[in-house]
Amino acid sequence: MSLILTFLGKGGTGRTTMAIAAAKKLASQGQRVLLAGQDPGPALGLMLQTALGSDPQEIATNIQAVQFQSTVLLERSWEEVKKLEAQYLRTPLLGNVYGQELGVLPGMDSALALNALREYDASGKYDVIIYDGSGDQTTLRMLGLAEIFSWYIRRFQKVVQDSDLWKAVSPFIQPVTSTVLNVSWTGENFGQQPLKEANNLLDQGKAAVADPNRVAAYLVTTVDANAIATAKYLWGSAQQVGLTVGGILLNHEPTTEAFAAEFDPLPVSAIPSRSDDNWQPLMEALPDFRQASQAPRPITIDIPARQVRLFLPGFDKKQVKLTQSGPEVTIEAGDQRRNILLPPQLSGQPVKGAKFQNGYLAISF
Amino acid sequence: MSLILTFLGKGGTGRTTMAIAAAKKLASQGQRVLLAGQDPGPALGLMLQTALGSDPQEIATNIQAVQFQSTVLLERSWEEVKKLEAQYLRTPLLGNVYGQELGVLPGMDSALALNALREYDASGKYDVIIYDGSGDQTTLRMLGLAEIFSWYIRRFQKVVQDSDLWKAVSPFIQPVTSTVLNVSWTGENFGQQPLKEANNLLDQGKAAVADPNRVAAYLVTTVDANAIATAKYLWGSAQQVGLTVGGILLNHEPTTEAFAAEFDPLPVSAIPSRSDDNWQPLMEALPDFRQASQAPRPITIDIPARQVRLFLPGFDKKQVKLTQSGPEVTIEAGDQRRNILLPPQLSGQPVKGAKFQNGYLAISF
Repeated sequence: MSLILTFLGKGGTGRTTMAIAAAKKLASQGQRVLLAGQDPGPALGLMLQTALGSDPQEIATNIQAVQFQSTVLLERSWEEVKKLEAQYLRTPLLGNVYGQELGVLPGMDSALALNALREYDASGKYDVIIYDGSGDQTTLRMLGLAEIFSWYIRRFQKVVQDSDLWKAVSPFIQPVTSTVLNVSWTGENFGQQPLKEANNLLDQGKAAVADPNRVAAYLVTTVDANAIATAKYLWGSAQQVGLTVGGILLNHEPTTEAFAAEFDPLPVSAIPSRSDDNWQPLMEALPDFRQASQAPRPITIDIPARQVRLFLPGFDKKQVKLTQSGPEVTIEAGDQRRNILLPPQLSGQPVKGAKFQNGYLAISF
Repeated sequence: MSLILTFLGKGGTGRTTMAIAAAKKLASQGQRVLLAGQDPGPALGLMLQTALGSDPQEIATNIQAVQFQSTVLLERSWEEVKKLEAQYLRTPLLGNVYGQELGVLPGMDSALALNALREYDASGKYDVIIYDGSGDQTTLRMLGLAEIFSWYIRRFQKVVQDSDLWKAVSPFIQPVTSTVLNVSWTGENFGQQPLKEANNLLDQGKAAVADPNRVAAYLVTTVDANAIATAKYLWGSAQQVGLTVGGILLNHEPTTEAFAAEFDPLPVSAIPSRSDDNWQPLMEALPDFRQASQAPRPITIDIPARQVRLFLPGFDKKQVKLTQSGPEVTIEAGDQRRNILLPPQLSGQPVKGAKFQNGYLAISF
């Protein structure tokens, strides 16, 4: 299992520069590093002075680099889909549709990249994977996919099973399935097997994002007021997808007390500007990325105290909305909605109170 | 109908600055302008010195501004989905699922923003809508959605109709539909009505993106080599979604002959740096955005010459891939795949030859 690192911040603050410097630093410490670029444009390749491909290639000792290409990843995933289909359907439909025809729709870049990261992680070939993504809300949506998609599955599974439509249709499922499916299912467990496999993957994804020893983000900013405000916003937004932010990288300038106070309690590392091809000063200024686990965690559930505490820095009270529907509690902040699946001891209990203080939302049951 | 303008380029080159200056310029000419920001972070509001909301508000004479919030847009769209469901299903399933619960998955930001742009366009309230999006591949995926999604619909509709699965299932559709649907359909036209409505919307979207008097992009760059390379890449990539690029905005520096040659035949406007709150020099330096229709068009189909010409600047021969499957031709370049639906006179004809010259791919049938 790898540590997956990513850098968040306003465009132009130097996220890709930090990603490369981090790769060089970790490789110099003997870590096997994969540097994965999301943007298909030429910028990363130019900075690395290498033409990148859609498969990892060694660009220096201990460093491999890859540039995700959604068209290529989609072709590969399509082959997997066809294999799955052949496994479950007696007469597959998709045989005549080729991966080379498929266009890329919004969201596919993120889903395909997340799947590629998962595979590189599982390959055991890398100690650290550095993901040079768009570094904004899009990266957070990608890392939130497992948690949010799990919610959609469990919510809509229940909706369908409770529905009159299901009661009307399910008697027909039995005869139809025996005609077209390769496996004999009863109406009850129709679709359960692939769903179970999907849920397993999603659970693994959720666990990884929630563990700062597996996935961590660092904020990149300059002293520009806009860049600082954007970094603070992304700090809070990252918590909403359960992602731990390990520290701040202040690019181009030494840090000040006032600056550090903005991001308290996170450590700030001041990173010097790069001159020509000398990466050494940047590598030395970067923090120990394994320390991300010391940063505040996005969520803590205290069962004896009957309390859920969410860390939501960068937001004020008015920007945070709490609603309860059924067994779940929904937190809305930073254009993110997070449904918290409560442990059995708190599930179904009404919210008794909520207090927003020092960047923490404490919900009592 | 509005003119929808957007700015593409590397992060940090000043895309949002250009969007604001363009809004001010057009408003000063008496155009009713909507400035729509995609990023939910604080940057756009700080630059406008106004707190933005999820509904348009007047921020100056002739300028309204809105900041898209996917959580809010998703709630609104969900209500529409529930209405549609109630129209077609006897016993709706989704009544108990509330918009306030729904999390945002990758791709939803783009789909929801595109739908919001469509509605603002149709409202008749704005002469120009300036979309301050992520300005990269994500914006192109959004603007390519209509064309690519249309392809998925026509391809998979055919796959399903030709399949043994459909033949096995369709006899059951009739009895099931009469039980659960509000409308009486035969198996033949099952799902045709909503599909027809969806196809209409997609056709309108495709027509708008293909018309530079309706949708146009401008490239923003500085003299930085990385920024120039990214702008060139986005120039070519924009053609792949059928989007016309009207010109180049060179930020902070005067243009040179060498620079202009990089983007020939597009006009280059040199935009001075902004000092404090003085936008006037920027407004004056911006081009006439209505001139985008004079730029090369992404695709021209010459039926008498039996030729399709695609403008693909910024790519070399090796980066462009052409395949033919069935009646369609697929062009792959810049991590985009475009399926070209040929007119009846050329449809189904084999490709006789293809030549890549001066940034144009000419395909002969």
